[in-house]
Amino acid sequence: MQYPISGGQIIGFSESRSGSQTFQSTNPATGSLNEWHFLEATPQEADRAMQMARQAFRVYRQKPGPARAAFLRRIAELLEEGAEALVPLYVAESGLPEGRARGELGRTTGQLRKFADQAEDGSWMAATIDTADLARQPIPKPDLRKCLAPLGPVVVFGASNFPLAFSTAGGDTASAFAAGCPVVVKGHPLHPATGEWVARAIQQAAEQTGMPEGVFSHLQGTTHSLGASLVQHPATAAVGFTGSRAGGLALAALGQGRQVPIPVFAEMGSINPVLLLPEALSAGDKWAAAYAQSVTLGTGQFCTNPGLLIGLEGEALEGFRETLAREMNQIPQACMLGEGIAARYIRMQETLLQENGVRRIGAPAAAPGVNCVPPTVAAVSGSDFKASPTLQEEVFGPFTLVVGCRDEGEMLQVLESLEGQLTGTVLASEAECGQYRVHIAALESRVGRILFNGVPTGVEVGPAMHHGGPFPATTDSRFTSVGADAIYRWARPVSYQNAPQELLPEALRDANLLGIWRTIDGVPTRESIHNE
Amino acid sequence: MQYPISGGQIIGFSESRSGSQTFQSTNPATGSLNEWHFLEATPQEADRAMQMARQAFRVYRQKPGPARAAFLRRIAELLEEGAEALVPLYVAESGLPEGRARGELGRTTGQLRKFADQAEDGSWMAATIDTADLARQPIPKPDLRKCLAPLGPVVVFGASNFPLAFSTAGGDTASAFAAGCPVVVKGHPLHPATGEWVARAIQQAAEQTGMPEGVFSHLQGTTHSLGASLVQHPATAAVGFTGSRAGGLALAALGQGRQVPIPVFAEMGSINPVLLLPEALSAGDKWAAAYAQSVTLGTGQFCTNPGLLIGLEGEALEGFRETLAREMNQIPQACMLGEGIAARYIRMQETLLQENGVRRIGAPAAAPGVNCVPPTVAAVSGSDFKASPTLQEEVFGPFTLVVGCRDEGEMLQVLESLEGQLTGTVLASEAECGQYRVHIAALESRVGRILFNGVPTGVEVGPAMHHGGPFPATTDSRFTSVGADAIYRWARPVSYQNAPQELLPEALRDANLLGIWRTIDGVPTRESIHNE
Repeated sequence: MQYPISGGQIIGFSESRSGSQTFQSTNPATGSLNEWHFLEATPQEADRAMQMARQAFRVYRQKPGPARAAFLRRIAELLEEGAEALVPLYVAESGLPEGRARGELGRTTGQLRKFADQAEDGSWMAATIDTADLARQPIPKPDLRKCLAPLGPVVVFGASNFPLAFSTAGGDTASAFAAGCPVVVKGHPLHPATGEWVARAIQQAAEQTGMPEGVFSHLQGTTHSLGASLVQHPATAAVGFTGSRAGGLALAALGQGRQVPIPVFAEMGSINPVLLLPEALSAGDKWAAAYAQSVTLGTGQFCTNPGLLIGLEGEALEGFRETLAREMNQIPQACMLGEGIAARYIRMQETLLQENGVRRIGAPAAAPGVNCVPPTVAAVSGSDFKASPTLQEEVFGPFTLVVGCRDEGEMLQVLESLEGQLTGTVLASEAECGQYRVHIAALESRVGRILFNGVPTGVEVGPAMHHGGPFPATTDSRFTSVGADAIYRWARPVSYQNAPQELLPEALRDANLLGIWRTIDGVPTRESIHNE
Repeated sequence: MQYPISGGQIIGFSESRSGSQTFQSTNPATGSLNEWHFLEATPQEADRAMQMARQAFRVYRQKPGPARAAFLRRIAELLEEGAEALVPLYVAESGLPEGRARGELGRTTGQLRKFADQAEDGSWMAATIDTADLARQPIPKPDLRKCLAPLGPVVVFGASNFPLAFSTAGGDTASAFAAGCPVVVKGHPLHPATGEWVARAIQQAAEQTGMPEGVFSHLQGTTHSLGASLVQHPATAAVGFTGSRAGGLALAALGQGRQVPIPVFAEMGSINPVLLLPEALSAGDKWAAAYAQSVTLGTGQFCTNPGLLIGLEGEALEGFRETLAREMNQIPQACMLGEGIAARYIRMQETLLQENGVRRIGAPAAAPGVNCVPPTVAAVSGSDFKASPTLQEEVFGPFTLVVGCRDEGEMLQVLESLEGQLTGTVLASEAECGQYRVHIAALESRVGRILFNGVPTGVEVGPAMHHGGPFPATTDSRFTSVGADAIYRWARPVSYQNAPQELLPEALRDANLLGIWRTIDGVPTRESIHNE
């Protein structure tokens, strides 16, 4: 599969080239500009994409689950068929190695297929039926049926750190399509060619599987105003975003400030605290090696890299820090995703290193090339950590701060001072899991996922995954952006009272034609309703 | 059961009397002050109630479902045992008839018991388990388990129009307790004695069933600042409110403006449009009688009274309007809930009657007593309706506006101009349900519950109820304030990765000790997990 990279906007089934401003992406590994020129989308193009999405919603929301599934599966096929063309674009724009590109492509097509399965199956709609009881006193009980309905057009912001899995055809887009929502993507300006290529695949899949024009559009731009206009557009029903706290908060405020407020699901990163308990520390070298990998994975540019390690100060922690720093310096570092991101890493780690009581462990390794940065381990005492809100800020990149607590009381205070997080990790022996219940509960109450004796990087895509967490990790702790339940961000329940069969969504009719799990009079079942 | 009405704050297991300002409630039926004097809660008392709730949360969240259920059931018992004392307070403060008081008490205890059942059962926690696969390539699949956890202390605002079912021990409080959240109620100042009596019952139930002190507090006050301080308190995790749009929007803005934003679930009323299709209109008299009852039910002070009827202009609609007005004038009207509410009704209906093209149907009936108001039917054309946003404002009271559309095209435009609503109703023959699909879909997309050939008043309390709706009916269309799913407002998912059995919530352990429905590897089941 070959698609041109022509630099325009993908709006419905056409390309639009109204703009006059252009921009280029840079190859972070070389620092030189990539060959393609991209047009900045105009306000009129943004409006047109949203208007078309609104029109498409009327048709797309009625498409049966299997039709949506075919659309999603076709996208996955086209991405796979075009892998040899797509991977070089990804590498040229992200500086990430080819293996990562192929791995992320596999994850992306895997997500598309999982959401296809969900769309086809339909159990996600949470069909619930309370049957009538005409003999009930004092008044008859009506027939009441409820299931989820799609919200409407969704705006998705591409993420810098996952050009495939959290961008144009990423989890937000796939879950919104599965729910029955059209999607308008605001591509990330660091990887516009990757974005356009994927957008053309989605466009082709939509045409090939008979989806309404406008079910998908893709806009390019480097300005805040483009994104703002999409969030504020009256046709927009919800927004998905993965990125910085500043960006997420700005979009959330725009979503709230509308005449009709809409949900903005922003995943804003996290420092992913790790609780290192003494017996686990005694196997410190094993964990130091594993954490050196986890901190530096993807050059520290994952949402789940562990940026904070909390232990009791002493010889064991000292040894752990030294080993961690040594191991991290030995791992070859790829460049960061862009010049701005690398510069921000350097600035942020310097800011943190200048906070009261913070010191660097070991000497900085030489940064081997363009946009490369030295991995950093820093140390601080529990009391200095508690005193500085700055030390809770995410340093996006291969940085981690080790907090040495005076005793278990201070360790609890440090845990209780933490902001909301995507993940929290406990490294502990079996006995310690019992002994430190209060500490573990304090961590658990601040995170979306708590894990034991492992590393937080590596986010499973499954029904039991919760990739979310209390503010400021996300804007809404009740929803996940990874895994099957990500679909619930894009739907709302509707109840039908005494509705004729033909006006009910298929999921709610007497005959369970979809064969889905439904809750009938309080009991989960796949049976049909048989009326005498 | 007798409780004193002493006018203080119920904070934890004590009464607090720090304030110096007092207020009294009025008997709306007579216009005279009730005997009791209530202290306005001080900022210090508000802070103390929230601090205690935060402390209580640590213990209460760990209480097993059956313990929470026992607490909820005991509240229901105490309310029932005290009915003879409670009902007169309710009547003296609401002006509503005794039958309504008893009916609402039954609904309230019914809700408490339904949420008790849910707490005891535990299936609501949506336990989901993805079992490990250590042989998976390229990396082993971890054991991942997810269920819902309570958010933390919830602030509930009592509602003027349901002194029992949506106030101190109403659905918000009951569902929050069931989820594992402590509750601080800001009582509605129109019924402080009813509130205090119920608060004392909850306090006693908490003590008798061994709940931690602070699981419940009740504060009285007439000022906005008290409510604002509760929403802004750092210990508050979520808010439940039923009331006016202005009030709901103000609280939602406070919730969003916090350093850590929190969800404010505000149900802000609705005009509950009714689509009157021609064949149903031909049986107009039957529907006119039913709608006269529904519009005036509870003196029009329900969230679901139908305030807007939409039909095709013509003789049939004219006849319907006349009959409706006549029938409404014949229904004896009770007083409104308070002087301010009655005055606002008069002002609002006059405002609407002065809008372009609006006319009153029939002569106003005499208002028979203190705080009584004349029921009103008004008529307007489709084009005038579309031109006036004012005509979409809720007139809280026995008012309804009949929109006469020129043709089916204009009828669709009227439907598409509507704001979000709690309910929408279709009165139609079987054939019309097919013929008017586009109209019905337009209505459906704007409501939380759509019902056929009935009246929207009467909200079933069951799993399939969705009492919510798109903005501005509520601040969050994805959640309901009535029925089993109301519990989901107060919880968030937490994932556990490779967690030891003893650190898992009971719902997620291998042995399904709670006997709940769980989703294991994608399939609903009540089986335990048996590890070889």
